[in-house]
Formats: sequence, structure tokens, C-alpha cells
Amino acid sequence: MHENFLRAVVEILFENVVFASNQTKVVLWQPPQKLEQCFDFSLGQNGVTQEKLLVFLKNTIKFSVKTGHRYFINQLFSGLDPYGLAGQWLTDALNASVYTYEVAPVFTLMETHIIGEVCRMVGPQWGDGMFCPGGSTANGTAINLARFRYCPDIKKSGSCGLSRFVLFTSEECHYSIHKFASFIGIGEDNVILISTDSIGQIVPEDLDEKIKKELAEGAIPLAVIATLGTTVRGAFDPICEIAEICKKYNIWLHIDAAWGGGLIFSQKHRAKLNGIERADSIVINPHKLLAVPQQCSILLVKNRDILYECHSKHAEYLFQKDKYYDKSYDLGDKYLQCGRKCDVFKFWFMWKAKGSSGFANHIDTLMDLAEYFEGQIRERPEFMLVSPRQYMNVCFWYLPRYLQGKQNILDYSAQLHKVAPQIKAMMIKHGSVMMGYQPLKKLPNFFRFVSQNSSVTKKDVTYILDLISEIGTAIYKVGHVRGCKVKVWKV
Amino acid sequence: MHENFLRAVVEILFENVVFASNQTKVVLWQPPQKLEQCFDFSLGQNGVTQEKLLVFLKNTIKFSVKTGHRYFINQLFSGLDPYGLAGQWLTDALNASVYTYEVAPVFTLMETHIIGEVCRMVGPQWGDGMFCPGGSTANGTAINLARFRYCPDIKKSGSCGLSRFVLFTSEECHYSIHKFASFIGIGEDNVILISTDSIGQIVPEDLDEKIKKELAEGAIPLAVIATLGTTVRGAFDPICEIAEICKKYNIWLHIDAAWGGGLIFSQKHRAKLNGIERADSIVINPHKLLAVPQQCSILLVKNRDILYECHSKHAEYLFQKDKYYDKSYDLGDKYLQCGRKCDVFKFWFMWKAKGSSGFANHIDTLMDLAEYFEGQIRERPEFMLVSPRQYMNVCFWYLPRYLQGKQNILDYSAQLHKVAPQIKAMMIKHGSVMMGYQPLKKLPNFFRFVSQNSSVTKKDVTYILDLISEIGTAIYKVGHVRGCKVKVWKV
Repeated sequence: MHENFLRAVVEILFENVVFASNQTKVVLWQPPQKLEQCFDFSLGQNGVTQEKLLVFLKNTIKFSVKTGHRYFINQLFSGLDPYGLAGQWLTDALNASVYTYEVAPVFTLMETHIIGEVCRMVGPQWGDGMFCPGGSTANGTAINLARFRYCPDIKKSGSCGLSRFVLFTSEECHYSIHKFASFIGIGEDNVILISTDSIGQIVPEDLDEKIKKELAEGAIPLAVIATLGTTVRGAFDPICEIAEICKKYNIWLHIDAAWGGGLIFSQKHRAKLNGIERADSIVINPHKLLAVPQQCSILLVKNRDILYECHSKHAEYLFQKDKYYDKSYDLGDKYLQCGRKCDVFKFWFMWKAKGSSGFANHIDTLMDLAEYFEGQIRERPEFMLVSPRQYMNVCFWYLPRYLQGKQNILDYSAQLHKVAPQIKAMMIKHGSVMMGYQPLKKLPNFFRFVSQNSSVTKKDVTYILDLISEIGTAIYKVGHVRGCKVKVWKV
Repeated sequence: MHENFLRAVVEILFENVVFASNQTKVVLWQPPQKLEQCFDFSLGQNGVTQEKLLVFLKNTIKFSVKTGHRYFINQLFSGLDPYGLAGQWLTDALNASVYTYEVAPVFTLMETHIIGEVCRMVGPQWGDGMFCPGGSTANGTAINLARFRYCPDIKKSGSCGLSRFVLFTSEECHYSIHKFASFIGIGEDNVILISTDSIGQIVPEDLDEKIKKELAEGAIPLAVIATLGTTVRGAFDPICEIAEICKKYNIWLHIDAAWGGGLIFSQKHRAKLNGIERADSIVINPHKLLAVPQQCSILLVKNRDILYECHSKHAEYLFQKDKYYDKSYDLGDKYLQCGRKCDVFKFWFMWKAKGSSGFANHIDTLMDLAEYFEGQIRERPEFMLVSPRQYMNVCFWYLPRYLQGKQNILDYSAQLHKVAPQIKAMMIKHGSVMMGYQPLKKLPNFFRFVSQNSSVTKKDVTYILDLISEIGTAIYKVGHVRGCKVKVWKV
């Protein structure tokens, strides 16, 4: 009975998701209140039939976003790799939790191998690493390691009575730095933001000045967090100069390369990571650039003992002292998590399937596409670049005709700010393309094109830009909105 | 090409894992050095053929632990639910990340529904909740909420300059309390351990005294962490008395019900959770008792605003202010994680399939089995209970004949301490049964029987106990070890 059911499930998944994602809309949009009505979320005392379950499955797919669709360019992940999916499905079937060698022998050794391999790709001195449930947690873990390095007693005694700790990072950093600064007791106000230049890179002189200022005020600088591939603009901070500053003041250098770190596989583009080996810790998320399925995030550390020293607790019900094998193979005690989903197999399986060269080709294809996209933005009069592209991210405005060349009018920014949300809403309602937008510093809302799906083509780029133009032309007529005037302008 | 490959993968999974787990050994044991030799973990420049990939898949299965096997009774999870597996496979195919309604509409509403439902089952005042990557993180998040409640400024300013914070918990608590006390800056020495009685429950008088003592020393008591279902003995702390003490001193009460909380579904056994509604926060791991696949962990909070107040950061690239829908539906900002794997669907799908009554039957069956297991331990002379069973956990010693009735001999404890590891090693090498053992306080190593797989029968219990007896009889002959004397006694 269960076998037939599971076979039916697999057929539905093949037909409606895995091999269908480019034949359907990227999303069949329903506002929340409407979706509440057309989907039965209720949970009751009694179960339902398998037939009904299959209908629920189909409806879940129907109303979910097709993140494998090539027009899903909304986040820093997309695409659905068949080897990655196969890896996930095996992981789920084995339903392992990775803390001891005993309970997860293959996955344990696989983690050690893959972390060793990535360490070698970073540099000869790199010592250890761990899988994290996402880049935010990985960043937070790194900050705590920096604090531990400064003051190992904090593990036992806490931070009570110690001086004020401060962190330094880009004003375009990922918000997890603030979230985890709060969480681990440093406080978000003690995250000192360093100015960025016109393309989004940290200004090293500003970093140096702000460190001096904090030192003068009696604060303890714990870590500098540099970013290789910022979330919005894809900026790469000048690592070598930052590393010099960290050396000068003896500060831990953490690199958030969650988005950019995958470049380590590309000979053509690896240079963007130059200096990365000078860090003390690095986050790389294979689930971003490398299109490994959600989630796969790795924190690497140079010091090979610090994960155990900082995190271990020696729980005797898991890490017994009298094991029948060498317990140094148990990885669990270097983690903060106890039960932990296996995130390594899908990555290992993809790597085995494609080889390093396969990841390199994937990256190079995506970079070429981003370059083409940027070129198109430069060529078309109705689009404008926010700043020159450094990576996959192409940030741009669509300019309605009445705003083209009108940068000097009083409310230009305020007007432009309204455009992206309006076009996005239309695209979502069509279900044609999902593309993210956001403001940044003083810049009004702009679109961010970014794809991790190497099946996206130049033709797709044309389609996407034509679509935005068409929608824009339809919405904006010499300063007012055609049709749904009130609705569209209500921001 | 990918379709044929994925179909072949599914067939291998069906044949070798999903529908095979009781026909094979629970593990085909290889020590680490040996497994390194017989499994090709290497990663190279070039990919391998699909045929080879399928062989790797089979080998991964071959050398992995079959956690769905009914003789996998090693951890607080086991079994493989077909609806849970179907839910995981769908989740993977859709490859969602749950932060905004826009990008995960169905899963977002599903989370809200399921958390609302579980809140209602706890009590009328319960307000909100979140999914966490495991119970450890959930416990850590709760401790930080308690600190935030005491001092909301800490989010911005950090804990520098504040008094010493202390936590109170059972000496039989889960080790995540210490790990996260260190991580968030409280320090593991500031986790004050409360004595437990002969069956593993917190002694309320000791709690009261230790709070008084810490207050007298100028510390700030942040939280009491009570456990419903301790990891080793399955003890249930006396919540009502603890809640009174928390009320008296105005201390946050967190309940780690990761293991015991699933009882909320059973009318027959729900009473073990009496008083749970008096807590401020609760952790329940559906991936434990309810056999939801790894991982599914829920943190519930009474105060409906505190998750947003404590965690929010308002990142504008995700939580834009000018959305085309009511952005209160976006859940991401109440989380610490940014990208987050969808853990709700498998749970929702199982619940829909079985109904609440299905979970109740599952629990009641398991409780009956544990009762039967305990009875068998009491009846057989070669076994001895560690303490009376309160829950699923049956903790027991196997007594070699030369130790039976010899509690008074000088090195009784030391001798007994060696028994469980030796028998376990033999069982693992046979691949017949995986069962955990550990010491606790001053008690020498003992076995812990615990199953979350409701297909385990009384016949299985007999098999397991007979096996332990047989191995024990073979190993121990009037005070010495037959055959591998040196090896077995080397502890």
C-alpha cells in the first residue's frame, strides 16, 4: 500500500515539478487571504485517504513558487540540479543525524573529506570546518570563535564584567551580522559599519579610522567581517588591504563568502577571491552559487583545534569514552547542534557527478550571462545600471519614459522608488518572472538580476528585459498610470 | 537522460532502503580506517558516469546505518514514516527557502497553521512559535529570549557592563543548555545544576535554595530550564512546583520537551505534561517521538510579540516596505536564520495523513511496548533496572552471572561499567541491534532502550533481550572473557 503511494508521489513530483518547471508559470500567485480559502490547511482528529493526500500534494505544488524555473531570479539560489536532488532523496531515505561515526559512518567521513578538500582549495594552512544550517548561523558561529580566541574563559565564565566588544563590517553586509551580534550578547550597536565606495566595497581607510576610534574609546575590536559577494550588489571587499589592517591590530578576519565563495572552483574567476587565505574563518554556501539544494553552508577555520576547544562539551551519552572505535572520528562535539541533518551528501554527489570542472563550467557560464545582461542594460535607453557589475549581480533601474534623462527634477528619486515594486507586482501576478528589488543606502528601489541556473540563456535575458519594458510602457503614460491609477500608485 | 537516472535512483532507494530496512542488518559495520579503504570518497577534476554514480549510491546505502530498521534503538529518533518521506521528497523537489510569503506561500501559511494548532494544544494563552534546526538551537534561542525579556536593551547594547546572568537546570539536562549558554555569552559555569532524585526529576527544594544563593551573590537568575523527558532516563521534572518557584522569583520558565512534548497528542498520556502551559517557552521536536523525518523542531512562546521584538532586523532586500501584499505574512524577520529549509511540510503531511488520532495511537503503542520491555527487565535475573521507567526510556544493566547479586563486592561498579560497551561492540559487529549506553552521575554504564518506531513488537523485545543475554553469556565466563580476553577488557 505504501509502495504504491510512494510511487504515485514520485510520479507527481516528476511530472509537476522536477521535469516541468520551465513549462509552467514561475508562480501561480494568490494573495495570502485568497490562498487561505483555496487550500485546506486544516488539521483534524482523523486522517484522510491516500487519494486526498495526493491531491494535497498537487495543490502544494500548484501554489508554490517553482524555484527551479529559469525565471526564478529572486534570491541567491535557483535551479534544481538532478544530482543534488538525488542526493537529497537518498539523505531523506536514510534519515540520518550526523553526530557520531557510529550512527552516520559514511556521512561522517564524507564531511571530513569534503571539508579537507575545500580547505586545500583555500590555502595550505587551513585546518577544519563545519556544516551549518545556513550562512547566518555560520557567520554567528565565526563571530563567537573570534570572541573565544580573544578570551577563551568566556566559554565558562560568560562575558559579564568584560569590556565592550565591537565588530567591523561593511555598511552593505548581510543582516545576519547584526542578528547574531545581538544573539551572542555583543549587541547590534556594537557592529560598526564601514563606508563603502560607489561599487559597494569597504573603504579600507574608513575601517582603519573606525578601529582607532573604538580603541580610543576603550572597546575591544573582536573581528572584521569582510564580504566577498555582497547580497545586493555582489561587491567584493578589498581583502588584502583589510587583512593588513587586521594584522596591524591583531583582529580576527572573518570573510562572509556565502555568495562569492563558490568562485573557488573557477580558474577564470578565482582571482576575485585573492587574499581569502589570509582570513581566520570563511563562510561558503554551496547552496548559492553552486546550486546545491537547500541547505548547504560551510564554515571554514584556519585553526584546526578551535572548533573543538570552543564548542565541545563531552556529553557522555553520545561521546562515550569507552567506544569500540577511535572516537576522534566523532564530529558532533565540535558542533553547536546535537541532532543535525546531513547536508554533505548532496554536495559530495554533485561534485562526484560533475567534477570540479563541472562546477567551473557552471560558474563561467553564469558569469558570461551576467556580463551579457549588464551589456543589455547599458545598451537599452529605458534601463540604467546602479553601479558597474563585479559579479553575478546586475543592479538596474527601469526608467519610465517620463523619467529618462530627468535626474535633475525634484522628486526623481521618489518617483523612481515606486517603479520597481509596481513592475514586480505585475510580473508576479502574471507569474512570468520573479525578480528581486530593494533600495540601498540612498539609492531608490532597483532590480537585482542574479541567476544560479546555468540553463538560463541570452534569449531569456531578452525575454526578461522586454517583459519589464512592456509592463513599464503599459503602466506609465507621460506621468500617470493607465487604467489602475489609484491601485498602482498606492505605495 | 536525467529522467532515467532519477528513476534508477528511486528504484535503488525503494529496494535498498525504504522497503528493505528490516530485511538487512541494521549496520554493516566497518571501522573508520577500513571504510576509508572500501569507499571511494575522493573528489576530482572530472565527473564520473551515471552508472558509477549509481554504484556510489548503493555503497552509501550499504555502509550507512539503517535508522528505519526496527532494531535501530540507538537515539531519540527511529523509523521511517512513508508520509514523512513523501513530504521530504516534495520539499526537496520544490527546494524552497522559507523567509517571505512571496517565495514560499504555501509553506508560510502552513507554518502559521501548524504553530497555531500546537499552541492551542498547549494552552489558550500561547502566542507564537518558530521552526528551528534542532532542539539545541531551539533551547539556545529560548535562553536568549529570557535574557531579552529581562533586558531588551541587550539586543542593541550587548551584555557588557551587566550583572552575571545565571540559568538553572537539571543535572540530567541536555548538554545544549551548556553549549548555548557559552555561545550567547552567559558561560557554562553560570548554568547552575539542580539535583535530581532517584528517578531523575529535579528536586524543587534544591532549585529554590540555589536561586536564593545566586541572588544573595548578586547574580541575575534569567531562566529555569525544566525537562519533560530527559535524554537518558526520560524523566519528567515536576513542572507545577517549578512554575511556582519561577513565579515567586519572576524567572522565565523554559521547558525542554524536545523528547517528551509529543505526548501532547495522546489523551492517555497527556497528563505527564500537566503544567506545561505555565511555561514561557517550550521546545517540542516532532522528529523525535512523532517520527517526523530529520529535522523538525519547534520552539513555542507564550508572548506573541517577543520573537519579532527580539530577532527582527528589517532587512530591506527581503522585507521591503512597499510590497504588493500584506507583509505581516512574511515570517523571516522573527527568525535568526535567513535562508531556511522548509521543515513544516513533512509534519503537516503526516498529520493530515494520520490525523491527531494517528499520532495518539503511535504514542500509545510505543508506551505499551516500553511498559512490556520494563516488565521483561524486571522478570529476567540477568537484567536490572537502573530506575523505574517514567516514559519510553527503559534504562537497564545486563549483569554477567559473576556479578549477579554481588553489589557488595569492591569493584562491582567498575566491573559493571565495562559490560555495556563490550556487548554493544559485539552487537554492532554483528549488525544485529544498535542500542545506546552511557554512564549517568555515579551510575556505571547502562543500556537505554527507546523506540519511536511503532512497528517494533513484543517479539522484537524478546529477540533483543535474548541477544544481549546470549552475547553476555558467551563473553563472560565466571569472571573472565572467553576468546578475545585482552581486546574485550581493554576499556
